[in-house]
This record gives sequence, structure tokens and C-alpha cells, in this order.
Amino acid sequence: MQRVCFALHVPPEHHDTYRTAHADVWPEMRAALSEAGWHNYSLFLRDDGLLVGYLETEDFEAAQRAMAATEVNERWQAEMAKLFGERADEAMRPLEEVFHLA
Amino acid sequence: MQRVCFALHVPPEHHDTYRTAHADVWPEMRAALSEAGWHNYSLFLRDDGLLVGYLETEDFEAAQRAMAATEVNERWQAEMAKLFGERADEAMRPLEEVFHLA
Repeated sequence: MQRVCFALHVPPEHHDTYRTAHADVWPEMRAALSEAGWHNYSLFLRDDGLLVGYLETEDFEAAQRAMAATEVNERWQAEMAKLFGERADEAMRPLEEVFHLA
Repeated sequence: MQRVCFALHVPPEHHDTYRTAHADVWPEMRAALSEAGWHNYSLFLRDDGLLVGYLETEDFEAAQRAMAATEVNERWQAEMAKLFGERADEAMRPLEEVFHLA
């Protein structure tokens, strides 16, 4: 199991819209993520715009490819790109894990 | 169970030292964290200095207080403060969790 962390930026003027969208993620998007192997997946937002994602998965590259192949991901990412100014799913570069304690 | 994420900054000139220290955290520090309720705790580092912490705990404030009361934490944080330029344990402010998928 890989533990994956990535960091993105959501401009503060879009935080309310971002929060609202993520409080009510489409059921078909949640199902697609689960089926693609995204587990224990959280998103955390800081006032200045830092967005941190954390998830656990067998193989992050495979999990990304599996999502990229879904129709619902195309629709979701197109909506989110209006807030990010870029395709968030294509900008997720994992940080290096330097410590872990079970 | 709370999922907690915090973000700090490690100046890039100290990354090698930080990585080395965290590849070999003192056993008594690991034991103290576990006993204080820090679970599934990872630290992730980005080249520009962004450091992200993720952990799961029953009560983060209680988990912080429990660590602050240990002698080993005093020694560890004093070492790490040389790299951070501040007391990392006193600078951990949780980000807002805006999404979770089990």
C-alpha cells in the first residue's frame, strides 16, 4: 500500500465554491474513485490556498490512469479546473514520504 | 477518529539532515508518539521546503499535550528546531478537512 500526498493551490476567492462542491461530491465520482483504488482519501484546505491531498492506494499511477479513463472524471475535472485554473488531476505530483509511524 | 493535516517549512539547505534524522527516529520518540495516540503518521517533503504531516488520532489537542509532557519530545524538538528555525510541535496548525472518502 502506498501513502500518497500531493499539494495544489486553490485561489482563496474560490474557497467557498470549492468547499461546497467537496461537501457534496457526486455519488458517481465517489464510486469511481473507490473502484479506481483511491482509499482513505482526504483533502485539506488552508486559508492562503494550500490544498493538500492524502490517500492510500496499491499503485498511485495505476489509480490515476483508472480515474483518467472514466467519463465522470472528465466532467468533474472540467468543473474543478474553473477553480484551479488547471486540471488538478494532471497536476498531482506526489511528495516524498520521509517518515512513517504505523 | 480525527484525520489531521498540518504544513510546515523546512529550508532546502537542511533537507539532507532532516531526511537522515527521520529515516532513523529514536525508538523512544516513536514509542512516545504511539503512546500519545499519534497513529498512521507520515511526513512528506517537497523540494521547495513544504513539509506536510498527516496523522490519525482520537483527539489532536490531547495527543499534542501528551507529547509535550514527555522528556524525549523536548530533546527531539530541540534538535529539529535547529532545522526549522522554530519549534515544529508548537507550529502545527491543522488544515481544514474539506473532503473524505473512506
